Amino acid sequence: MKILIVGAVAAGPKTACRAKRLLPQAEITMIDQDKLISYGGCGIPYFISGDVEDGRELRSTSYGMIRDERFFLEAKGVLTRTQVRAIAIDRKQKVLSVDDLSTGKRETLPYDKLVLATGSAPILLPLPGNDLAGIYALSSLDKAIAIKKDLTQRRASKAVIIGGGGIGIEMAEALADMWGLPVTIVELTSQILPGLVSPVLAGLLTQHLKKHGVEVLTNESVTAFTADGNGRVNRVLTNKREIDADLVIMAAGVRPRGELARNAGLAVAENGAIIVDRRMRTSDPDIYAAGDCVEVLHLVTGKRTLAPLGSVANRQGRVAADNLAGIPSTFDGWVGSFIMKAFDLVVGATGISREVALREGFPAQEALCVQTDRAHFYPQSALMFLNMITDRKNRQVLGLQGIGAPGDGLLARINAASGLIAGKASIDDFGNLELAYAPPFASAIDILNTTAHVADNLAAGRLRVIDVFDFVAWMEGKQENNWLVVDLRYPDEAEPFLQGFPDRWLSLPYDRIRADYRKLPAGKTLILLCNSATRAYEVQCVLDSLTITDTLVVMGAANVLRRLGLSWWPRKTD
Amino acid sequence: MKILIVGAVAAGPKTACRAKRLLPQAEITMIDQDKLISYGGCGIPYFISGDVEDGRELRSTSYGMIRDERFFLEAKGVLTRTQVRAIAIDRKQKVLSVDDLSTGKRETLPYDKLVLATGSAPILLPLPGNDLAGIYALSSLDKAIAIKKDLTQRRASKAVIIGGGGIGIEMAEALADMWGLPVTIVELTSQILPGLVSPVLAGLLTQHLKKHGVEVLTNESVTAFTADGNGRVNRVLTNKREIDADLVIMAAGVRPRGELARNAGLAVAENGAIIVDRRMRTSDPDIYAAGDCVEVLHLVTGKRTLAPLGSVANRQGRVAADNLAGIPSTFDGWVGSFIMKAFDLVVGATGISREVALREGFPAQEALCVQTDRAHFYPQSALMFLNMITDRKNRQVLGLQGIGAPGDGLLARINAASGLIAGKASIDDFGNLELAYAPPFASAIDILNTTAHVADNLAAGRLRVIDVFDFVAWMEGKQENNWLVVDLRYPDEAEPFLQGFPDRWLSLPYDRIRADYRKLPAGKTLILLCNSATRAYEVQCVLDSLTITDTLVVMGAANVLRRLGLSWWPRKTD
Repeated sequence: MKILIVGAVAAGPKTACRAKRLLPQAEITMIDQDKLISYGGCGIPYFISGDVEDGRELRSTSYGMIRDERFFLEAKGVLTRTQVRAIAIDRKQKVLSVDDLSTGKRETLPYDKLVLATGSAPILLPLPGNDLAGIYALSSLDKAIAIKKDLTQRRASKAVIIGGGGIGIEMAEALADMWGLPVTIVELTSQILPGLVSPVLAGLLTQHLKKHGVEVLTNESVTAFTADGNGRVNRVLTNKREIDADLVIMAAGVRPRGELARNAGLAVAENGAIIVDRRMRTSDPDIYAAGDCVEVLHLVTGKRTLAPLGSVANRQGRVAADNLAGIPSTFDGWVGSFIMKAFDLVVGATGISREVALREGFPAQEALCVQTDRAHFYPQSALMFLNMITDRKNRQVLGLQGIGAPGDGLLARINAASGLIAGKASIDDFGNLELAYAPPFASAIDILNTTAHVADNLAAGRLRVIDVFDFVAWMEGKQENNWLVVDLRYPDEAEPFLQGFPDRWLSLPYDRIRADYRKLPAGKTLILLCNSATRAYEVQCVLDSLTITDTLVVMGAANVLRRLGLSWWPRKTD
Repeated sequence: MKILIVGAVAAGPKTACRAKRLLPQAEITMIDQDKLISYGGCGIPYFISGDVEDGRELRSTSYGMIRDERFFLEAKGVLTRTQVRAIAIDRKQKVLSVDDLSTGKRETLPYDKLVLATGSAPILLPLPGNDLAGIYALSSLDKAIAIKKDLTQRRASKAVIIGGGGIGIEMAEALADMWGLPVTIVELTSQILPGLVSPVLAGLLTQHLKKHGVEVLTNESVTAFTADGNGRVNRVLTNKREIDADLVIMAAGVRPRGELARNAGLAVAENGAIIVDRRMRTSDPDIYAAGDCVEVLHLVTGKRTLAPLGSVANRQGRVAADNLAGIPSTFDGWVGSFIMKAFDLVVGATGISREVALREGFPAQEALCVQTDRAHFYPQSALMFLNMITDRKNRQVLGLQGIGAPGDGLLARINAASGLIAGKASIDDFGNLELAYAPPFASAIDILNTTAHVADNLAAGRLRVIDVFDFVAWMEGKQENNWLVVDLRYPDEAEPFLQGFPDRWLSLPYDRIRADYRKLPAGKTLILLCNSATRAYEVQCVLDSLTITDTLVVMGAANVLRRLGLSWWPRKTD
């Protein structure tokens, strides 16, 4: 059997090597149009930052062998040809015509089974000047090496990143933290990580980026680039301003490379993604596809999405190889789990955000929980912020998003949720989920359990809340409400607010509520505020039992408000 | 409604406070025989070590209020009485007779609903001299304060810990790392963490403890204690030796405090654990129980077990409160998830170990995987070791155990597995489990996915292995085998072994196997060895296809062997 694989970065090599192990007699050939293959593409920001010093590390196995043509042939038994570009598939003859870019010759390669692992390409925005030197749409390791050369040779001194998604933020950190460049992120929508996390979490992250020298411009679109005398970009023009920049990185998303498949008459989605079944088979039974070039079923929305991640590509490659060898493995879909580092914060998510849930027609409820990531008395404990999105009708958990301190604490909660969300788990499954516990690792009630408890209390109507940004709008005079803040924290915490906002603020410490509730004025909606909303919820229950029911809790409470860079928040309480 | 709660450490306060929120009109009273209540018992080792400086921190809320009688009354609306011991339940009259230890008076307290949260007591081994000063069976915060006094007042200079379970190891670290005491752990069985992790993982941990000055004696039992002239322990006698010690901590397990329930005629198991249903109801519909004093269904074995953990107690307390208020929540069982820190290692598990699986009659298969916890090219990557236990018949994952580097990396895998194992997930569910990925957090193929892939290859017979300890026994001449090691690592890694064991060792680097396999001698079983068994598995596949099938892979490979403290392992390769 001749197996021909197009693409040799992630899904391609995984398919090739697993298939060769399962079908040792098969003749497996892998081609790629680039010279450098089988690299950890997700590691590119860390190569650019210098965390990973040498690009070869991204191409090495854990035991230190470079994954080049020789390696695949001698160690893996897979014939690999680089700088060979696939041109067209002749499905009747079962041959692939290719151009050998080093010789300029066209050839045809026969196959019994063909695997398309053609990946994705970054979107190059069609703007005037987009071909100037210094403008990169980050894709391959080659491009990354070119960017690093710009940095080491001091051609880059000020950077603009177009797109505030994960890659944009990772690149911002690489350039600002390690190279000291002033960096501006220009984001088209109203927030960074749009659709991925809530506006509140995006707000926390934005402040953190600013603290580290990264400017974030939202609701802003790039319109053109201008050049210096040497043909290098020197300015980025937006709909609002001009920004000096000699390095521009387009991180505005990717498009699947599906032309080869489409031209061969295979089923391809409008966005270019190749359509495959759960066994990674295209509409031609002899042609498989895997990796960034295919569509993936989203297990929460039921829609087909892109999933351009090395982890997904590898798991799909394994499934493709299994099926080539007659093992009926399946790749059933995904829930969009992601994790990223951004300076001293970690951001992650799984399932869908409230915004996506509402867009998809779910009756979405959002619970925001702030709690320490380990026992609060344990020295290294730090605050974690989790958003849980649930379905008001059936209590299904639709998504979880969070921000945490450096390390794997947030990963531990995202990973715990990922498989459960894929299995359509409910609030109750999460409320009683067994998470490993010892004080150096978690609270006795893990923040993930607590978040589900908050969702449960919300769903039952025991907890009634207002959104952080409604509160901010009211405080900033942009929204009229007949509200009065009841500050449940210690008196010294409330003091600066009583002075600053005497007509809006009242102090009534949490543990005095049962004794002193009669001091609360009537005729206004009481906005219950503490640090993390735990005490506010309890006070709401107490007041309910005293028939004082016109109360609302500020979700996220002071722990969120003080991190949003609000001009009116007293500095000394930070 | 009068709700009376016996016990005010974990399950008791959780039940009380949640019940008060759900039933604000209820009159809730909580009693405890101790003076100090509502403390984080699992934090005791960190209080003794000094990581947590003040015992009050274990009794404080995250917002810094001490959880004492006043707090529960004023903030929570729960009447709390300390130093009040429950004596007997009169179920007909629905009263509890109690002794007020401060006044010496007996009283009766009426109830409509009674909640037993009587906890557990550490097992005090019935050995001669067990009542000497300096011998502690760690239970309450009071005891912990007494131990810390012994340390600060320099009465303790050398410690023996009886029992190599989690608490024993945590205490060993506390005493050795922070106080510099020489510590000896005496463990009755053949390994530390018996039943919880495999002998291999226990071996790795034992070496790590030794490196940090903790002696570990296994297969050894304490027989008596002797005293100095002041009545303080000065020596621990075992079946094998005498050990000088002026501080002894018994960490040989706990027994549930079920006497009160048993004497009242409630259903109680032989070991003293109160039997409850999924709603935490005892055999009397007006009496609930929660926390260390109850039995918990193990969702893998189907047997009833103890689950003495603060996290379980809290979740059970919430369920008890819900049901008191008519909300039909359930606590369905657990899978024994745990995590602990031991110096610079983290140990964790969920589900059952191979030893328990075999004992329970499962046809257990064990896959051992060694891989970096994040992308191997990322600077902070470190090795993680995972054991996956599966059912040979139906591919169900029965358990996962692991050792990792400091931080939450292992927690992220244990938490991901816990909910899935409770749901009876299979090897395939784990092989394709979606785990969040970015190079600072995981490999493109997460170690948890890889471990499932190893289990899959084992189950399919593609991977054929020998146990690490069989290999060690053969190398040490304790086991005869017609074996020859084929060292697949780089020649300089193999060199010291070729010199040390010329008749047992052969070097054939991994990437030369397809070219040079003819150099392999016939007539012996080839033991394929590399660093993590990845290359060995691939070579096994290659050789199979060449009809050289008498080969076996060493599970865990050199990455495990070099960490077992083997006398014959060449030092310079460490």
